[in-house]
Amino acid sequence: MKPEFTLRLSKLRQRMAAEGQQALLVFSLDNLRYLANYSGEAAYGIVTMDQVFLITDYRFVEQAEEECLACQIICRNRDQQSLGQAIREVLDASHISTLLFEAGHINLQMWSGIVQEMTGIACTSSSGVVEELRKVKDAWEIAQIRKAAAIADQALHDSLPLLSPGISERDFALELEYRMQRLGSEGLSFPSIVGFGPRSALPHCIPSDKKLAEGDLVVIDFGAVVNGYRSDMTRSFVAGKADGRQRKIFDTVQSAQQAALQSLHAGQLATVTSAAASNVLLASEFAAYTSTGLGHGVGIQLHEQPFISPVCQDRLQASYVVTIEPGIYIPGYGGVRIEDDVVILDDGYSFITHAPKVFELPI
Amino acid sequence: MKPEFTLRLSKLRQRMAAEGQQALLVFSLDNLRYLANYSGEAAYGIVTMDQVFLITDYRFVEQAEEECLACQIICRNRDQQSLGQAIREVLDASHISTLLFEAGHINLQMWSGIVQEMTGIACTSSSGVVEELRKVKDAWEIAQIRKAAAIADQALHDSLPLLSPGISERDFALELEYRMQRLGSEGLSFPSIVGFGPRSALPHCIPSDKKLAEGDLVVIDFGAVVNGYRSDMTRSFVAGKADGRQRKIFDTVQSAQQAALQSLHAGQLATVTSAAASNVLLASEFAAYTSTGLGHGVGIQLHEQPFISPVCQDRLQASYVVTIEPGIYIPGYGGVRIEDDVVILDDGYSFITHAPKVFELPI
Repeated sequence: MKPEFTLRLSKLRQRMAAEGQQALLVFSLDNLRYLANYSGEAAYGIVTMDQVFLITDYRFVEQAEEECLACQIICRNRDQQSLGQAIREVLDASHISTLLFEAGHINLQMWSGIVQEMTGIACTSSSGVVEELRKVKDAWEIAQIRKAAAIADQALHDSLPLLSPGISERDFALELEYRMQRLGSEGLSFPSIVGFGPRSALPHCIPSDKKLAEGDLVVIDFGAVVNGYRSDMTRSFVAGKADGRQRKIFDTVQSAQQAALQSLHAGQLATVTSAAASNVLLASEFAAYTSTGLGHGVGIQLHEQPFISPVCQDRLQASYVVTIEPGIYIPGYGGVRIEDDVVILDDGYSFITHAPKVFELPI
Repeated sequence: MKPEFTLRLSKLRQRMAAEGQQALLVFSLDNLRYLANYSGEAAYGIVTMDQVFLITDYRFVEQAEEECLACQIICRNRDQQSLGQAIREVLDASHISTLLFEAGHINLQMWSGIVQEMTGIACTSSSGVVEELRKVKDAWEIAQIRKAAAIADQALHDSLPLLSPGISERDFALELEYRMQRLGSEGLSFPSIVGFGPRSALPHCIPSDKKLAEGDLVVIDFGAVVNGYRSDMTRSFVAGKADGRQRKIFDTVQSAQQAALQSLHAGQLATVTSAAASNVLLASEFAAYTSTGLGHGVGIQLHEQPFISPVCQDRLQASYVVTIEPGIYIPGYGGVRIEDDVVILDDGYSFITHAPKVFELPI
């Protein structure tokens, strides 16, 4: 087993022990990837104090055996054994009578079936035990996010020459995505957001047939995936020369991002970083056109803890990887968002995304 | 509102009335798309006897208002109101005291939060009410699946010349996917399966850097999406001339598919169709290398009801759209799967996928 996994399991078991629990029932596939290196589907994990069991079926058993070298793989015949029965069998063989389960990752119907088999087992609903561990990235994880971000940087560089009047949002997104995958991205971090003109003001703009026109604002939000780890970056442009208002919007967003970045270091309150950006935005003439969320953790999931917002009680720690993405969105006119991924350091931060922040596109 | 939606809601309300329920709480986004035309995220529906409410937040409210013309859109401020409170507000305003909820589409943690606000409301767990309606496709839905399948057919035709010795699984998948999207597919129906040589025996082969060699078996399983509706097709090839065993495997799978197709008509038991294929496979010398599932419904989801297998109690009805996909998978050697999408007719079936079933690739 890679040393990373040993450490993750050891931290998890400390938590389990502290709560007086003998096992954790893992329903989140993302958490199974983190704890057991499993990247397939239709699997359920049981972490005890000395073993990790992974219950899957014939479709994924080969993959599980290849990926999860330190796990006991159980191939369930779904026509003959319910999931609850398979779980119970493991619990009994391991003499488990108390367990935590991930209540946020199992639907009510499935849980109702499982719980029928749990007579005599004390099942305690648990939320975010593994997600809490995932906030601090280890060196290997940071390296994967850096690789993903480097692919996205390069793909944007290679695609930008296509971003000239007449290309559609959809076609540009597709060319960018194709290039990321040619460069080694495992699919997409998420469906790319590409918005031109007034559509750049839509925070979740789905690329359409809208064609780029000279003078349009452009927002591009996209990312790559390497070994299951995601990147997430936004760049904003104007097609040609920016007018005064566009320039002012861009400069305001850039200043807000700069203020937030300056605030970053291990120990900082997420609310302070959030306020650093919003102070700039709210003092501008665009105060009415901002949004509240400033950023989020990124890793196996695109959006994971911590969330950087006015209500997040988190204190940033060294080796958190977070996005910082202030924006201004003026309905019917257009928007600008600038988003980078950074890793938190003891005394500051380090950029993971590196694409230049050039505003005006030569057309 | 499009007439399709009126009909869907009317059928749903008949079910609700038959069960003595005043409302359905919809947690599945696929079901919201089916009932209300919503294609975004982070939304929850409440269907009463005379209205449809859709609860979302600022990120998706604009999209909801554009797409769901016949719905009451509620924009919830997530910092100030819990989902349970927002739901309760709607229920009280509509004087609802009995409701069904989709227990298979809400996690236990979220439901625990919602149920706290449901004092005095009789909440009945419900499974598959909307999924049951979705099995019978209307003309518009069938037309979308046909469009998706036509894109996949064309993309395969355009990509096949690339399938020559030296190309990797990954590169071929990417080229195929790029062409589908250029032809109008909204992303991918699912991550394509492309397997060469022994890897063609893996039912869920993730494309790798493995390069095609002369004589390799090749399995390609992929699909397109149009207006949210998916296609799903598999073709199998050999790179160059087939040897005797490869030819026999291909012919056996093709005969099994033919037998299953011949059995199709409205009123047929899924188990009879399943047996038609497996009788051919089990009578062959490859009996040890088959799998049990023969097919599945396809539509808004890739895998939806009905499932065609030895244990499925369903009777196929007119306007079901299903896949028929027998296969032979010999570990360490290779596999063949042939999969088509068909619509069930009163007296037979109609192909939705049309790509030719040529086995030998010219190389």
